[in-house]
Amino acid sequence: MSAEKQLSKTAYDQLDKDADRILQLIEVQMENLTMPQCPVFEEVLDTQMFGLSKEINFAVRLGLVDAQDGRDILDHLEVEVSKVHEAYMEKEKNQV
Amino acid sequence: MSAEKQLSKTAYDQLDKDADRILQLIEVQMENLTMPQCPVFEEVLDTQMFGLSKEINFAVRLGLVDAQDGRDILDHLEVEVSKVHEAYMEKEKNQV
Repeated sequence: MSAEKQLSKTAYDQLDKDADRILQLIEVQMENLTMPQCPVFEEVLDTQMFGLSKEINFAVRLGLVDAQDGRDILDHLEVEVSKVHEAYMEKEKNQV
Repeated sequence: MSAEKQLSKTAYDQLDKDADRILQLIEVQMENLTMPQCPVFEEVLDTQMFGLSKEINFAVRLGLVDAQDGRDILDHLEVEVSKVHEAYMEKEKNQV
């Protein structure tokens, strides 16, 4: 594998890892926050998504990651976060 | 130049460009905000520094940028931002 292909693969791996980390952080927050609707939750999520988008944008500029793939990573993460959010809300509702 | 060296050079160039962009943004803010001491200013700066640190960290993980160089980019930017801030404060003081 060429050095550039290897770097591109590493870039994708790292971005996936970071997206997973954000999802885990959100899950932990959902479990531990009394109010997942609260602004702090939204702010943490926004900040993390912003950070990831910066990394993706940087990787795209270096030509290591395809721009559409980059958007897909963010979109996919948003869908996953929504799922976690909904699952938690459903659980809360059933407990009342 | 090898592909990896070329990518490393591009990574450094892009990070320098981003640091410059943040500094320019801060300068524009200083010129246009009535209250550069206000929390909005600090928040914009924090967010931008966070974004840049994410990019740097990403580049370091890919082995494209040396960890110490990455810290130096952030430190240097902080010094430059302080200078802009102080220069503005001095100007304001003299106008009163």
